[in-house]
Amino acid sequence: MKLNKEEYDKFHRKPLQVQQAQELLASYGKPGLTEQIPLQESHGRYLAEEVKAPHPFPRFRRSGMDGYAVRSGDTLGCSSDQMVWLDVIDEIPCGSVSDHEITAGTAVRIMTGAQVPEGADAVVMLEMTELREYEGRTQLGLKRKIEEGKNVTPIGFEVQEEEILLRPGRRIQAGEISVLASFGVHQVTVYQKPRIAIFSTGSELLTVDEPLQPGKIRNSNTYMLASQVREAGGEPFILEAVMDDLLLAKAKVEKAMQEYDAVVTSGGVSVGDYDIMGDFVRSDSVDMLYNKIAMRPGSVTTAAVKDGKLLFALSGNPGACFVGFELFVRPFIQRVMGCDKPYLTEWTAVLEQDYTKVNAFTRFVRGRVEARDGMLYAIPAKVDESSVMVTIKDSDCLIVIPPTKSVTSAGEKVKILLLKGNTL
Amino acid sequence: MKLNKEEYDKFHRKPLQVQQAQELLASYGKPGLTEQIPLQESHGRYLAEEVKAPHPFPRFRRSGMDGYAVRSGDTLGCSSDQMVWLDVIDEIPCGSVSDHEITAGTAVRIMTGAQVPEGADAVVMLEMTELREYEGRTQLGLKRKIEEGKNVTPIGFEVQEEEILLRPGRRIQAGEISVLASFGVHQVTVYQKPRIAIFSTGSELLTVDEPLQPGKIRNSNTYMLASQVREAGGEPFILEAVMDDLLLAKAKVEKAMQEYDAVVTSGGVSVGDYDIMGDFVRSDSVDMLYNKIAMRPGSVTTAAVKDGKLLFALSGNPGACFVGFELFVRPFIQRVMGCDKPYLTEWTAVLEQDYTKVNAFTRFVRGRVEARDGMLYAIPAKVDESSVMVTIKDSDCLIVIPPTKSVTSAGEKVKILLLKGNTL
Repeated sequence: MKLNKEEYDKFHRKPLQVQQAQELLASYGKPGLTEQIPLQESHGRYLAEEVKAPHPFPRFRRSGMDGYAVRSGDTLGCSSDQMVWLDVIDEIPCGSVSDHEITAGTAVRIMTGAQVPEGADAVVMLEMTELREYEGRTQLGLKRKIEEGKNVTPIGFEVQEEEILLRPGRRIQAGEISVLASFGVHQVTVYQKPRIAIFSTGSELLTVDEPLQPGKIRNSNTYMLASQVREAGGEPFILEAVMDDLLLAKAKVEKAMQEYDAVVTSGGVSVGDYDIMGDFVRSDSVDMLYNKIAMRPGSVTTAAVKDGKLLFALSGNPGACFVGFELFVRPFIQRVMGCDKPYLTEWTAVLEQDYTKVNAFTRFVRGRVEARDGMLYAIPAKVDESSVMVTIKDSDCLIVIPPTKSVTSAGEKVKILLLKGNTL
Repeated sequence: MKLNKEEYDKFHRKPLQVQQAQELLASYGKPGLTEQIPLQESHGRYLAEEVKAPHPFPRFRRSGMDGYAVRSGDTLGCSSDQMVWLDVIDEIPCGSVSDHEITAGTAVRIMTGAQVPEGADAVVMLEMTELREYEGRTQLGLKRKIEEGKNVTPIGFEVQEEEILLRPGRRIQAGEISVLASFGVHQVTVYQKPRIAIFSTGSELLTVDEPLQPGKIRNSNTYMLASQVREAGGEPFILEAVMDDLLLAKAKVEKAMQEYDAVVTSGGVSVGDYDIMGDFVRSDSVDMLYNKIAMRPGSVTTAAVKDGKLLFALSGNPGACFVGFELFVRPFIQRVMGCDKPYLTEWTAVLEQDYTKVNAFTRFVRGRVEARDGMLYAIPAKVDESSVMVTIKDSDCLIVIPPTKSVTSAGEKVKILLLKGNTL
C-alpha cells in the first residue's frame, strides 16, 4: 500500500510506554480551584488545606470510666481486710465541671468522658466500689490500691496542640470527619470536582433509548465513562455524540475543551478512514501528546492538549476504553481533586492460571483478585478481547502481563492494579 | 454494692458473640422498596431486578478490524509470489449495511465494528492489503491465505439471547452500566436508599460550630456516623442531640423510629447513672435485642426493635462507635439496599507486629493492610483504645484478635475486615 504523508503519520505511530504517557500527562493535571463546604457535605472530597490541632486532645484530663475520682495516695493501705472510706463530696456528669478540689480523704462521683477534678489523680471503676452512709455523709469504700493515673486519659494523649492533623490531598472519610469535628472544623476547604466532558464518535451509535437499527450498536461507552468519572471523583457531562464529520467534531471538541476541565472521547482513533479523532489530533487545532501506547488493549489511545487543557481520545472498543480511562483519565481527575495518590493501587499477586496470549506490548488483562490464607491470587477473565464489554463488570483488577514471547505460567508473580474504587 | 432489679439488669448483661448479633439483626434488615431511575443516575446503586439479554451480543457478525471483508475460500491459493486480486464492490462504514452479497472474487471495504456482509466469512486487516486499478475496477491484492472466521466476531460471542446479564443485588458500577447500555436498558429498577436517623446523647456535647466550654467536648460521632452511612449507601439525617433526659430521649427516638428506616445513636449505653439509651432499651418502649457484645471496643453495643424498625445504640466512644457501625449498621444498610454481600470483606493476613493486649472478648483492632510480594500483612494501630478517635482515619482494616490469654505474635495469621468501601 502506498501512503501519502498523512497516511504515513496514521500508520507509523511512535508508541509510548504507559508510564511515559502518564508522566507526560502529569505536567497538565494540577490540583485545581478550591471551595469551602460544610463538614457534613465533605464525605469523599479531598482536603485542600493543612489542618493543625488548635488545642491538645483531650484538652482536659478525661475519665475513662464511670466511677469515682480519687487521690491514689489515699488508697495506698487498703485491702479486702482493710477498706478505706472516702467522703463523696460531689457528682460530675459528663459536660459538667466540679467546683470542689479533691483533698485527702475525699472523692467525687464521675462519668465516662467527664473532666477529672483538681486534686484527683485516678478514677476507680464503679464496679470496684461500695457505698455507705456514715455520720450523715456518703462514703465510698475501696478494697484495692489504685495506681496513679489509672483510668485518667492525660491532656494531649491523642493529639498535641499544633500537631498536624491532616495534610492537603487527604481523602475525607469517616475517620477524617471525626477528627475535623472534634476540633471544631465545621467548614472545610476542598478542591473543586473537575468537570469532565464526554463524547462518543461514530455514526454507528444509537443512544441507549433508541430502537435498534441494522448494523448499528448502542452507545455504551459514554455511560460507562460517566460512571468511571463519578467513581474517580469528577463530575461527568455527557455531550451529544460526535458524528463522523471532521469539521463538526473539531468545533464541538474545541468548544468543550474551553468549557470543561478536560474532554474524554471514545472511538475514532484507529487507522480507518472514518477515524475522526485521530485526524483531529494530527490537525493544527491541538498539540498531540501521543497517539500510540505500547499496551493491549487500547494501543491507539491518544491524548492532545490545547491551552493547557487535555483531550483524552480513547479507543471505541469497550474493553480498551475502560482500561484507557483507568490508566490515564482517572489519575488526571484524582490529581485535579488534589489526591496525593492518583494512580491505581499496584499490588503483586500469584497468577492463578496460565495466560497464553503473547504480545510485544504490555497487556492489562481484566481479572479478579482473591485472597486465600494471606496470599493474593490473580484470575484472568476468560475473554479479554479489546472489543469485549461483558467482562468489565466481573473484574476488580487489571493483571499486568509484560511483553513476552511465551506463556505466563500459573504460579508466576504478576503485578495487579486495583479497580472499582478499591484503594487499599 | 447492693443492686435493685434495674441495676442488676444494667450490670449483669448477657453478652452475644458478634456473629450471633449479626444473625439476630439479619431477620430485620430486608431489601426495601424499589424505584426506577435513569441509567445515568444509577452509579453506586443496587439492582432490584434480574436483567436478561433481549438479543445476542454482538447481534450481527462484527468486523474486528479495519480492512476488507472477503470469502476465505478465495484466498486459498495465494502467496507472496502468487497474489490473488478481488474486486472491491462496496465500502461499509460503521453503522451502515452493505446491499451487496460477497460472491466469489469480490470483497468490500469494512471498518472495525461494522456488520460483515452476507457471503463474506473473514476480514483481512488493512495493513495486509494492496490496491490497484485494473480495467476500471478497484482491486484488492492479497499475498496470504486467510482463515475462515478471521477477524469476525460471531453473533452471540459475548452474550446469548435470554442469558442472565445481571442479578438483583448487584452493585451498579462502570462495567454494569456498560452492559445495561449495550442492551438498551435506559431505566433501571434499584432499591431505595435507606433513610437513617442519627442522634447523639449526652449533655457534654457541643455542636461542631459552638465555642468550647469547660468540661464539654465537641460532638464528632454524629458527623462520623453520617459519613459511614453515606459510604454504606444510605442517606443520613442528623437529628438534634438527645440530652440526658429519659422522657425527652424516649419521645425523640420513638418518633424517629417511626419516620426513618432505622435509628442510630451514639453514647448513653454504658453503666453510668446518665446512660439514657441503656435505660431506654430496658424500658417497655422497645424490645431489646442485646445490650452486650463479646467484643472490644464496644462491648456495650446495644440494639432494640419496635414495629420491625431497628434502633442501633452504639457506644459514645469514637473507636467503639466506629466499629459498632461497621459490624452491625453497615450490613443492615447494605441489606436494605439489596446488596448480596452485606458484611465487610474478610481476609486472612500475617500479623506484622506482636499484639500484646489480652482479653476474654474478641478484639477488633484498627489497623492497616499492606500487600508485599503477594502476601498480605496486617499492622495494628499504635493506640487503639475505645475512646481514641485519631487512629480511625489511618485504618483501612479491622484486625480480628480472638479471645486470648497471651500475646498474639508477629507472623501469626489473623483475620482482617476491609474498611473504607474497599470491597475486593
